[in-house]
Amino acid sequence: MNKKLKLGLFGFGVVGQGLYDVLHKTKGINAEVVRICVKQHGKERPIPMQYFTFEKNDILNDDSLHVVAEMIDNADEAFEIVSTALKKGKGVVSASKKMIAEHFEELHELQLKHNAPFLYEASACGSIPVIRNLEEYYDNDLLESFEGICNGTTNYILTKTAEENLSYADALHQAQQLGFAESNPKLDVEGYDAKYKLTILLGHTFGLFVKPEQIFNFGIQNLSVADSTYAREKGFRIKLIAHTYRTDNKVVAYVIPKFIKPHGLFFDVRNEFNAVQLGAAFSDKQFFMGKGAGAHPTGSAVLSDISALSYNYRYEYKKVAQNGKVPFSNDHDLTLYVRYEDDATLDELGVHSITQRYWSPDLKYVIGKVNISKLLAANLNDRKDIFVAKVEE
Amino acid sequence: MNKKLKLGLFGFGVVGQGLYDVLHKTKGINAEVVRICVKQHGKERPIPMQYFTFEKNDILNDDSLHVVAEMIDNADEAFEIVSTALKKGKGVVSASKKMIAEHFEELHELQLKHNAPFLYEASACGSIPVIRNLEEYYDNDLLESFEGICNGTTNYILTKTAEENLSYADALHQAQQLGFAESNPKLDVEGYDAKYKLTILLGHTFGLFVKPEQIFNFGIQNLSVADSTYAREKGFRIKLIAHTYRTDNKVVAYVIPKFIKPHGLFFDVRNEFNAVQLGAAFSDKQFFMGKGAGAHPTGSAVLSDISALSYNYRYEYKKVAQNGKVPFSNDHDLTLYVRYEDDATLDELGVHSITQRYWSPDLKYVIGKVNISKLLAANLNDRKDIFVAKVEE
Repeated sequence: MNKKLKLGLFGFGVVGQGLYDVLHKTKGINAEVVRICVKQHGKERPIPMQYFTFEKNDILNDDSLHVVAEMIDNADEAFEIVSTALKKGKGVVSASKKMIAEHFEELHELQLKHNAPFLYEASACGSIPVIRNLEEYYDNDLLESFEGICNGTTNYILTKTAEENLSYADALHQAQQLGFAESNPKLDVEGYDAKYKLTILLGHTFGLFVKPEQIFNFGIQNLSVADSTYAREKGFRIKLIAHTYRTDNKVVAYVIPKFIKPHGLFFDVRNEFNAVQLGAAFSDKQFFMGKGAGAHPTGSAVLSDISALSYNYRYEYKKVAQNGKVPFSNDHDLTLYVRYEDDATLDELGVHSITQRYWSPDLKYVIGKVNISKLLAANLNDRKDIFVAKVEE
Repeated sequence: MNKKLKLGLFGFGVVGQGLYDVLHKTKGINAEVVRICVKQHGKERPIPMQYFTFEKNDILNDDSLHVVAEMIDNADEAFEIVSTALKKGKGVVSASKKMIAEHFEELHELQLKHNAPFLYEASACGSIPVIRNLEEYYDNDLLESFEGICNGTTNYILTKTAEENLSYADALHQAQQLGFAESNPKLDVEGYDAKYKLTILLGHTFGLFVKPEQIFNFGIQNLSVADSTYAREKGFRIKLIAHTYRTDNKVVAYVIPKFIKPHGLFFDVRNEFNAVQLGAAFSDKQFFMGKGAGAHPTGSAVLSDISALSYNYRYEYKKVAQNGKVPFSNDHDLTLYVRYEDDATLDELGVHSITQRYWSPDLKYVIGKVNISKLLAANLNDRKDIFVAKVEE
């Protein structure tokens, strides 16, 4: 029925080590870790040294190893390992969202050309099996939209600013002390991590390969006490949401903070949890929630992929193959809350159809429409004088 | 890649008709409805009469039809159709939870013997792809527990009793008028519908085939204003929950009302929505929510199964095949709120380890432990003088 898989591991951090432990504990998966490639010499390891190598080709060139599980930090090295393994026809499992997002189309082609399966559930929304569901379940259901809280770090920070009235800086500091945020938090807080995940999900939602730099992302780093107060007074919570949906015969995709109303499904997604909401023509809204950041959710997803490989599962990318594809576009207006300092900003962003305007010595904002292409061009993440958030309509 | 499927339909009610419409509208699924078997002669049909037949063998004996989609009400007739189709090696899709629950092991054997795939996602939790997820994703993750709000009718009634202070009888009446409850609501309100679904899910969660009559179910039909008031005062909401989990080297399963605390994931599942919470060793809690009752969620799930068949998908029942199976048992104590009239009831149920006892002329209840086997033996659904609900510990 299923074959015994022999695995080569790259990386032996928390996830790699957890994976090794679980595979030796559970009976359900017919797989064994045979070789582990690490970088650091001389480090004490909890398992016998004969498992380890410092030479990647000891795994890549070993034909007895069917599957490579890549769990390292460096995106360039990860791509080198993954692409080489696929070229050799090995099955590959990876959690490297940045690497996959940046080389998505090429990795898709490598899978086809070398008939090698590549699974990466752990790269998307923590422990939520979103890619598997998009692949297997929604292909037929006239899928209309994906929205997700895809980054546990920012959701933790936003929960603290909302529930404990912390400033963004204090909440970030707390998250860093608890290990929920990196010392350089840029990738998380500016929405890049969420965007890499969205790039991957776009392939499985609408069958489109889009370069990350074509997708607008704006994070929560400029969130001010005034913005939090505005949300609280209106009864909203702010969440960083990755969106993609079909509209006017095109597909749009972007990452932006959003005001969520009390009965919205994302309202109660707290702390480091991730959540996904899929809109489909016949089943209406589907909602999934599970732990985001952390070694265990990642390990669980990696484990699931390894098990799936042992049953010869592979992504079929059915939507890529389907005809009548709707193209990606940034020419679409969003209704936004725009807090700004200089009036010229409104012109620069082309804010139009303004329905609300507030001015005081401490705070200026408008509610109006902005085209995604203008947002992308304005490099908002590099500025300190602006905060934008999507308004639910 | 995938073959063109020719379908024979049994039943042309709302779901059957919706299915026909969708298959003619969507490009994603390579399937066509060729023949439809109905019972009622002389009824006007929205599509040409040449599609219809009144003779089931016109479909069952037609070797050019690869797949049978069974969507009729009568469980005995449904079993006859499904088992005959499987014996002829046809793929089968069904939404008949009662029929599947009652013949689950036999249907499993028929699939193996005749190498015929049988999919029934629509039988479980409305539009939530729970079977597919249990099959494909959680097989490896040391799955520990399933809890679900699996019945939209009772959840609608419970939402009205909680939020609008309606009595059970008034809420039921309203649900009936809106078409959310049958004129004979017994199957829904006494927890039988949820139990049939649980029986099926037990096979995919822990690989066990258990007869429905071995599984305890108690519904919401005896819910009194005093019970609702008790819940409201404590800040709880009452939900009808289907449970199965591993404990002390056995698997237990039962359907019972439960008091949900404000931060519980089920707390905000309102109206006709269904929800599922899976507990796993490494990913912690996974939460899924989607529309329960209704033609569209059912149609969406049936459609998904048809699409899956066109890609040769089938359930692998991996947990059934796995060794070291933990047996099903009813010998397990639950901590319950027990409202009663006659003191003898407490003896009969063997209530022990009582931690709270309340007595007034209008209301008597205790909080204590009761063994599931005692609950099953007491035939609680046939009595009017008792209400039990699980207390979260």
